[in-house]
Order: sequence, then structure tokens, then C-alpha cells
Amino acid sequence: MDKKENSETINPLIDGHLHYLHNVSVDNVIFGYHEKELKVLLQRPQGMAKWQLPGGYIKRTETIGEAARRIAEARTGLTELYLEQFRSFGTPRRTEDEDFTPELLSKVSGFKVPADFWMFDYFVSVGFYTLTEFSRVKPNGDFYMEECEWWPVSELPEMVFDHLEMIKEALKTLRVHIYHHPIGYELLPEKFTLQDIHALYETILDRKLDSRNFTKKLLTTGIIIKLGEQKKMKGHRYPFLYMFDKDKYENALKEMMVLVV
Amino acid sequence: MDKKENSETINPLIDGHLHYLHNVSVDNVIFGYHEKELKVLLQRPQGMAKWQLPGGYIKRTETIGEAARRIAEARTGLTELYLEQFRSFGTPRRTEDEDFTPELLSKVSGFKVPADFWMFDYFVSVGFYTLTEFSRVKPNGDFYMEECEWWPVSELPEMVFDHLEMIKEALKTLRVHIYHHPIGYELLPEKFTLQDIHALYETILDRKLDSRNFTKKLLTTGIIIKLGEQKKMKGHRYPFLYMFDKDKYENALKEMMVLVV
Repeated sequence: MDKKENSETINPLIDGHLHYLHNVSVDNVIFGYHEKELKVLLQRPQGMAKWQLPGGYIKRTETIGEAARRIAEARTGLTELYLEQFRSFGTPRRTEDEDFTPELLSKVSGFKVPADFWMFDYFVSVGFYTLTEFSRVKPNGDFYMEECEWWPVSELPEMVFDHLEMIKEALKTLRVHIYHHPIGYELLPEKFTLQDIHALYETILDRKLDSRNFTKKLLTTGIIIKLGEQKKMKGHRYPFLYMFDKDKYENALKEMMVLVV
Repeated sequence: MDKKENSETINPLIDGHLHYLHNVSVDNVIFGYHEKELKVLLQRPQGMAKWQLPGGYIKRTETIGEAARRIAEARTGLTELYLEQFRSFGTPRRTEDEDFTPELLSKVSGFKVPADFWMFDYFVSVGFYTLTEFSRVKPNGDFYMEECEWWPVSELPEMVFDHLEMIKEALKTLRVHIYHHPIGYELLPEKFTLQDIHALYETILDRKLDSRNFTKKLLTTGIIIKLGEQKKMKGHRYPFLYMFDKDKYENALKEMMVLVV
């Protein structure tokens, strides 16, 4: 459903049923972190009041991971997103919605869409998520989308289908995930203060973490190195700068380090 | 594909395509623990040399979780299995296998199965897993299955499709899971020794855990209570018995306790 695809051969409203799998799709929960805020990338299709996750159909020639990446890239413009599966969603009427109708699709597309159109069938959706530095991402809505925007996870708009539940589940997975995998490499500047990384963990976990205890445990893992430099700030404090030890960081990713914070 | 279903209305080889979702199925990884051994429940279909996970198709009227439970119950005879999703698998040719052919299905069923039969299409499979006390489970193969057996995870037979990868992934999830959720309530007798629960964790994690450190951390969580009784054993040692504090255990499940062992 991205622009490139529409300009090529597949128009999902004409021959989508031949090129895409039936009864199974993907949805992406793209989290963005920037200056102590956690946001999620949502879209609003033409003619609909509710927002949705950037998801889509799986081509018969691609893996589910390839489908998720193709769709996410088309929306964000970023090519190196690391998407991970978190859960699949499947209940018989999950994509029924008062706004998602043959009339709407007909109006938006100019084609006559029948009531038993394949898109209205029972779709199981495989959920993928990722976490990125959101100032790097330029939301890029596709042909059928009216808006594409970052929303704070604490203030989400009205959403279509079970997409709100998907975001909640992805957030739960992200919060378990950071106990087992270090995060921060792509979310923090190359040199950062202990306050910066502390704020990152607090934002994602959405709770206060004892600063001394957090620092002590983080330093014990060996994934960050104290530099000789100090950050110049207003006032009297000049906090030391740190950077990630790339080897130890990669190793911690592999070993599933457990950081109890 | 369980017996009950076959005796009712749906025969997947005749009208399955009307009742089941296309392009998406479920597979169950059922782990069993008993006396320091971790096993997995596998089946071998009629006419095939390779083994497979107890999986099947999703009815248009049920959720993916209901499908997984229905199929697992039909295989094990257990009704209170707590199945959890761990990952979905989707690559275009994942269910192609030299043994899974129209000829085989025709031979086994007595129906003429065409080469473009719906079952040979690209199927994304949603993987579920559970851990149970395997001596409680009586494997119960269905109509098309020749054998249904427990296999040690360290000595698996040749398996069909990507089912070996599914087991490895489920095992990975189980091992991360036990850092965040207590296990043991259904796997240990009501009263158990510290040696019993230590062996359970060692078996599942497949590594040695320092006994004193493990015990200290486990007791800190408050989920087990020391009883006044001692276990009668041969020799001089009479280890104390423990039991789970049900409330604290349930609470730890909710709170995602982190037990670093």
C-alpha cells in the first residue's frame, strides 16, 4: 500500500486478493523517543475520523518480517529500522468498524467495492514494534492516508479496531525487553550524561528509578565507559560524559544481560 | 482435526476451506517437566517419517487462542492448559516438504486431493507454548496421527517444516519468561525441598545455578514459605520442606517479579 507499490503494479483494491495473503496481515508499532518523551507513529486514512497503526498486507512472495519492514519504511522514510515481533492478534470480528465500509473504500478509491470484499474478512494480524529516535524520522503518509503523526503514548487519539490494545501490548513487551537487552545506542547522543540515560529508562518504564542504584547497576554491566570530559551546563554542575562500549554492548545484546533497575 | 471434530461436521479434506482461515494456522509447543527432564510433545502423522508439533487450522468462528487450546486439548486430554503465544512464523515456502504431498493426503484420506489444494498454500503459523507436569498428561493422538509422544528437548527426532526452529524459539521465550514470572506451582508437588525447585530452574535454563545464591534470591521474593516439616530421605540429611505462598505467587505473576538467578 505504499506509493512505490501503487505506482507499480498492485492496486490492493483491484488485484490485491491475487498478490496478498488472505486472513493474515501485519501491523507496526513504531515508538519514538526524544527528550524524555515516548511517542508512537499513527496514521489517519482518508475519510476516517479514527487513527490506525501503519500496517498492511503480506505479499505471497515475502516473509512476514519483510512485509513489516516494507510497510514501515514506506511510512517513515527510514531504511534501517529494526522491527521485532511481539504478538499476533486474532479474533473473528477484530477489523469490523463503523468507519471501515464498502461505501468508504468505494468513495476513496473510485472503484465499486462489494460488501464481501476480501479486505472485510477475518484477518489475524502479526504485530511488530521498534524504538527509534523520533527526531530522525520524517513521517511519510501514503496515497490513502490523510495524516501521519507522532502521538505521545500517554495521550492517544481514538483508534480503529484493536489498535489501542496492540500499542499497550507492544509497550508491555518493550518494558520487559529492556531488562534483557541494553537500549540507548540509537536513542542517545554519542556522548551522554548519567542523567540522560537515567531519564531514558524512566521514560520507557514510566516510573521513578533510584538514581544511585540505577547508576551502580548500569556501571556494573560494563556497557558504558566514563570519559575524561565533562558537559558544560549552566550553573555549578558539570556532569561527566559517558559513551557506550560497543563490544560490551553487542555482547550484552547477545547474552541477554539482566539489568534489574 | 481432533476426533470430536471429525465425528461432527468438518472434514478438513472435504470442506475445511469453508470453515478454516486460509494462509494462517496455529502450532503448539507443549513442554513437559518431570524429575529433572524437559520434554516436548510431538506427533507423527500417518505415512510420514518426520515428526511435527500438534498444530492445526483456525475456525472462522474462534480466536487464535481458542484454536490453539482446542487443538492442544484434543492432543493431551488436559483441559486447563495455559497456552501463551511466543512468535509467529511466516516465510513463503515454510510448509513445503517432500513428505507432505497430494499423493500422501489422498492415500491417507481416500479422497482425491489436487495439487493446488488449499492446505499446500503459504501458511503463516502463530506459535503457542506451555509448560506442564508431563506425568499428568496422557498423549492422545488424533485420527490422522500414527504416534504422539514426549521427546527430550536435547534429543529431538527429525521434524517437518520449520518445527525444530519453533521449538528452539519457544525454549528461548520460556527461559526469558522465568526471569519475570515464578514457575513451579504446577510442576512441583505441594510440599517440596529447595533441591527440587533448584533442579527445576537448572533444567529449564539448562545451566548450573549456584545453590546458595539461588536460594537466597528465591527466599527474598517471598513466594515460598518454609514449613516445620522435614523430608524423610535415606542417609543423614532431612531437608526442610517448603510450599508456595499462593497470594505472593499470584502477585509476583502480576508484578512481573524479576528473579536474577
